[in-house]
Amino acid sequence: MAHFRVTKTCKASEVRLGELTTAHGVVVTPVFLPVGSRGTVKTLTPDDLREIGISIVLANTYHLYLRPGVDAIERSGGLHKFMAWDGPILTDSGGYQVFSLARLCRINDDAVVFRSHIDGSEHRFTPEAVIGLQERLGADIIMPLDECPPSNADMAKVAEAVQRTSRWAERSRVYSKKPGQLLFGIVQGGLYPQLRQRSAREIVSLGFDGYAIGGLSLGEPKEVMWSIVGETVPLLPPDKPRYLMGVGSPEDIVEGVSYGIDLFDSALPTRVARNGALFTPYGRQNIRKAVFRGSESPIDAECDCYTCRTFSAAYIHHLFRCDELLAYRLATIHNLRFIVRLVAKVREAIKDGTFEVFKAEFLARYKVTDEVARITQKRKWLSSDRGACDDSD
Amino acid sequence: MAHFRVTKTCKASEVRLGELTTAHGVVVTPVFLPVGSRGTVKTLTPDDLREIGISIVLANTYHLYLRPGVDAIERSGGLHKFMAWDGPILTDSGGYQVFSLARLCRINDDAVVFRSHIDGSEHRFTPEAVIGLQERLGADIIMPLDECPPSNADMAKVAEAVQRTSRWAERSRVYSKKPGQLLFGIVQGGLYPQLRQRSAREIVSLGFDGYAIGGLSLGEPKEVMWSIVGETVPLLPPDKPRYLMGVGSPEDIVEGVSYGIDLFDSALPTRVARNGALFTPYGRQNIRKAVFRGSESPIDAECDCYTCRTFSAAYIHHLFRCDELLAYRLATIHNLRFIVRLVAKVREAIKDGTFEVFKAEFLARYKVTDEVARITQKRKWLSSDRGACDDSD
Repeated sequence: MAHFRVTKTCKASEVRLGELTTAHGVVVTPVFLPVGSRGTVKTLTPDDLREIGISIVLANTYHLYLRPGVDAIERSGGLHKFMAWDGPILTDSGGYQVFSLARLCRINDDAVVFRSHIDGSEHRFTPEAVIGLQERLGADIIMPLDECPPSNADMAKVAEAVQRTSRWAERSRVYSKKPGQLLFGIVQGGLYPQLRQRSAREIVSLGFDGYAIGGLSLGEPKEVMWSIVGETVPLLPPDKPRYLMGVGSPEDIVEGVSYGIDLFDSALPTRVARNGALFTPYGRQNIRKAVFRGSESPIDAECDCYTCRTFSAAYIHHLFRCDELLAYRLATIHNLRFIVRLVAKVREAIKDGTFEVFKAEFLARYKVTDEVARITQKRKWLSSDRGACDDSD
Repeated sequence: MAHFRVTKTCKASEVRLGELTTAHGVVVTPVFLPVGSRGTVKTLTPDDLREIGISIVLANTYHLYLRPGVDAIERSGGLHKFMAWDGPILTDSGGYQVFSLARLCRINDDAVVFRSHIDGSEHRFTPEAVIGLQERLGADIIMPLDECPPSNADMAKVAEAVQRTSRWAERSRVYSKKPGQLLFGIVQGGLYPQLRQRSAREIVSLGFDGYAIGGLSLGEPKEVMWSIVGETVPLLPPDKPRYLMGVGSPEDIVEGVSYGIDLFDSALPTRVARNGALFTPYGRQNIRKAVFRGSESPIDAECDCYTCRTFSAAYIHHLFRCDELLAYRLATIHNLRFIVRLVAKVREAIKDGTFEVFKAEFLARYKVTDEVARITQKRKWLSSDRGACDDSD
């Protein structure tokens, strides 16, 4: 039986509904994966995730390999048992982290050697080793090691990365053997359409269970990102899931769906939650602002999350002003539930054939302030060194 | 109807069971109150508290007065609604915090003037103002403003504090009028038995709804503390609840019950949890220790808390090693559930007339390591300045 089934398509666009069958359950798509790099979606328990309506989570091979070590997780009966999550898990290969978070020592066609961002110890990843680690972790969907150059890399550098990513993808495909575990391919090629085409052609020719678009949302202007996505999606087989890596703000999910993306993951909803930026139908609100001090209403009157059902905005404001630990959990619950509800509404609209109307209405209401856009841009686009802090999610 | 009823006494000792009726429900005693100074028991939601079996919580007038301000809480419909806890709440007066956490400016019989530990702003508390604040917060049990000198204060200083505490208690008694709100008196007197006697006599003569023993567990040796408790309890009316303020480690609760104490509060169980010190029947365990890295068992095989039911010690160890926020919540749930189960077992033993046997067996098994005892001692006893950090719980 095929592990992916497109259940509804749209005439004039790539927009679609699907069902992705994994060893730990069926995921309806489009879907958003919260980031739990270290085997924990920050501040939340598996019970919280289920109550929020999360159906699949992302963890990271690089982080778990360094801490607690794959042996410790294996001894605990695998990653699902270790983190007490019995739903589907996708593990990223750690390729991106090796090139952004760790200190890169050397890379050749055989392997990448890097120093841990935690203790400086030296480690070596080959494509086969990374597949082996993910087989031992026992994730439902695994990713091959890839080379992910910074978004401002020149064309020669990106071309080299595309070539290496294809060779590593082939070795990963050959090495991967665990029954029931799906292996996705990753299309690289930076911001160069010709390289994206070449990468897509080579990766698709290897025959994976799904296809990811990697190396985007690294600070490039949004129009550039969507232009690349728009040119890449038609190169991928329509009967396989499409995964846009590292993208998952409310506005980007709605946009991405219109390009035919099925899976999204991003640390943004949980990270900004911990900074007090809460999603509402009108855009992000900074809960630390004095205007919320006496606000008896919930953060978002339309929201049905535990936080909005239970507490006033004034209480959440108070917790953030006091740096109380409960603040981070309550804000995370709200932002993830906002995303889950948004994606459910997106699926409903696709089903009803009204997605374009839904998209226009949502984006007209949901204001992406210049401030938010500028800050995100500045922080990421100008900084080629994302390894300064251990940003595990 | 009397708000307190002793439901079982023991022949040869002060040990007893009771029922304390408040405007938000009946509390069976002995009972432990977790500390939620700022209207939040750190890391936990009200749902967590209920699942753990907590029946009454403590909040603090000083903290809530400074942030978010009593007006903001009043506008939210009072403290219960603000923090979404519909069970009983006891608010401490803030007397202790003014003398330990804030910068004291001047004190006379009329009022105490202090600077906020948050922004240095100047504030003035009178006994009447503090009762008024607690009436507006709407707690079920409130405490009068008292003067709490450091535990190494000389006798003249403590005598002065006792005198002032009595005068303030009288003004508080006269001023307090809110129906359904219980007002407890606080016995001071430091480590001087004669002053404790005098304070108890004066406070009891004013006729409160319950009696607290304050100014202990500030770092004095344990034997000194229990000697003072043992001499003070018989001076309190047996038909009123007795509350030992700031005491609540597992071993101290068991000891305190044997002296006839009904209520305990302490930040210790939650604070040490956040440092990775987890209660087990054999004493505290430091979950950060390498020995737990591969441990498939729960922290405490006898425990029925969410943390122990769901996760291995290896997972909790991993979260602490990564400084993951979820660690603090899971550890807090465990330590509080340990205390709730312990106090339930204490009550059961009293009911069965086997408390002395239970106490001996518990204390023989529960090891208070020299290291733990020494650190607690040193940190608290030697330091007269507890205002260095905003230690709200």
